Amino acid sequence: MVMKKLVNKTEDIVRELNMGLVKAYSDFLQLAAEDIIVRTKPKDKGKVWIVFGQGAGHEPAYNGMVGYGMHDVEIPGGIFACSGGDRIYEGIKIAWERSGNTPVLLLIANHEGDVMNGGMALELARDDGIDVESVLLYDDIASAPKGEEKKRRGMAGMTICFKIAGAMAEEGISRDEIKKKVEQVTASTRTLAVALRPCTIPTTGQQLFTLADDELIIGPGVHGEPGPEGPMKITTANDVMDIVADKVITDGEFESNDEAIVHINGSGSTTLMEMFILYNRLDSILKERGIIPYKPLIGNMITTQEMAGFSLTLCKTDDEIKRFWSAPADTPYFKVSGND
Amino acid sequence: MVMKKLVNKTEDIVRELNMGLVKAYSDFLQLAAEDIIVRTKPKDKGKVWIVFGQGAGHEPAYNGMVGYGMHDVEIPGGIFACSGGDRIYEGIKIAWERSGNTPVLLLIANHEGDVMNGGMALELARDDGIDVESVLLYDDIASAPKGEEKKRRGMAGMTICFKIAGAMAEEGISRDEIKKKVEQVTASTRTLAVALRPCTIPTTGQQLFTLADDELIIGPGVHGEPGPEGPMKITTANDVMDIVADKVITDGEFESNDEAIVHINGSGSTTLMEMFILYNRLDSILKERGIIPYKPLIGNMITTQEMAGFSLTLCKTDDEIKRFWSAPADTPYFKVSGND
Repeated sequence: MVMKKLVNKTEDIVRELNMGLVKAYSDFLQLAAEDIIVRTKPKDKGKVWIVFGQGAGHEPAYNGMVGYGMHDVEIPGGIFACSGGDRIYEGIKIAWERSGNTPVLLLIANHEGDVMNGGMALELARDDGIDVESVLLYDDIASAPKGEEKKRRGMAGMTICFKIAGAMAEEGISRDEIKKKVEQVTASTRTLAVALRPCTIPTTGQQLFTLADDELIIGPGVHGEPGPEGPMKITTANDVMDIVADKVITDGEFESNDEAIVHINGSGSTTLMEMFILYNRLDSILKERGIIPYKPLIGNMITTQEMAGFSLTLCKTDDEIKRFWSAPADTPYFKVSGND
Repeated sequence: MVMKKLVNKTEDIVRELNMGLVKAYSDFLQLAAEDIIVRTKPKDKGKVWIVFGQGAGHEPAYNGMVGYGMHDVEIPGGIFACSGGDRIYEGIKIAWERSGNTPVLLLIANHEGDVMNGGMALELARDDGIDVESVLLYDDIASAPKGEEKKRRGMAGMTICFKIAGAMAEEGISRDEIKKKVEQVTASTRTLAVALRPCTIPTTGQQLFTLADDELIIGPGVHGEPGPEGPMKITTANDVMDIVADKVITDGEFESNDEAIVHINGSGSTTLMEMFILYNRLDSILKERGIIPYKPLIGNMITTQEMAGFSLTLCKTDDEIKRFWSAPADTPYFKVSGND
């Protein structure tokens, strides 16, 4: 069967997608050596640069969110394949040099390959005398039980970590304070996903996983990794949100009068129509429980190609987190006006 | 076969989606009578209010783009069904009252039902003594031949018209000047779409159209209306962009040294990955022809559920159009920082 995707040669996909992104948004982005994406208009030297490496195929995460108020350097890997340690090291070096030797912060999604390559990059950079620290991002409650939060995968909740880190860096806050705050944010964040349909892997033409025509999965990973429970029969939007919200609220111990940043992330082909219907139910659930939603974000931020599904993220806030979440951001695919 | 969409009762889809949208983005949006979406923070009286009515199911168009620098009132119809004339009239009345009787501008997408209902609304409003004018938006070169531009359907190029109208209104420019400029913009805009896979209609569970596994259509309408040519075999991203760009450039008589706003719109499930690869080719084509892209926009702005495909829009600019395209906008799904 012919793959219904508009690409050219398989081996050119990542290079061409990043070239296209950077050419379209040259006001924001440029390519450095090794096809590393760097913001075009960095602040004067002295700002902490935030660095991230990740597999491609999840656009706009996070190559399309490089810029003011978010991160500064993105090292794209292959399709669904994490960036190599040597390339992440190159990214860290760019950050260190362009910021005038300001301490660097590397964000690492908690996935085995990302952690290994991130670790290698940190070692190489430190051997070079670069002052770099890292924060591990984890939020997927389906991937490890309560009490073992640091074993959980990094999922859509990472976007909140990027936003807080980026806003702090723009304010001139030190690397060590940013690191501490992002550690707090990721520890306060809970995500649970739902998958309805797999996607086609663009490099192989194969389906990412299989799922019956009348089933959905609660708790899949961002690549369709199976959840702790098997598939269930598809049901209404309200029923699905009832299940997902209860698990997220319970795991995160969200209580009456807690304020939470709410993020519904689309996996690719689930419509905004569906996400709004899901939010409509969530809003009632939160009201019932006395949890106060803070500036929700609904959209396709971290996708898995055209997979159908969504995830719900709640992040417990404090005044600082709220301030940094509302602070201005200006990147191609994540913008906050900051007028409020 | 069970529909893989997260909805509740069919008859509640539109109401619930708009409720969810407005609850999530209450900083920006509120519901007025008749489920009409109105911006939360309108400028002081005296600003021209821009009104639009459209079928639902195309999110975020245009219910998610109500707000500062875009339009002020959106009257959602049913799924893929235009808003009724009596409801559009209600929307015009809201604009007239909340703006302190400032002349109103109604934008109308050139589709038979929208034109009929828009016309009815204009009549009802004028009978009420409301000063309202309309502009017809058309840009789809596949739907009528060159020389009969005003018979063409309104497609993704409408987003550029909304942006220009909204920016002018925020600057306090008069309704008649805005109308004149938007007429110029729509006449300077050319769009051509490509469809690869239909979507499921959420109210019926039926496919919107049929298409072989190895075929695509050049020139479909936003609801999969057939193009002037039959389906063709699927080919590479570069080949497809070569065909589409040539038709758009030729029809619009874009020449060397022309500057054009470029918009690649996704239909729903076509990935940003593919759209960036398409833009990468387009950038080379434009360079070869000496056409200068101005602040491109790539994303799912007007979707048809999870249809796979994209459209290319080029809009010939002048200094004013460039200024209004770059002016700040702050709505849930269309933001421009205006820092440049």
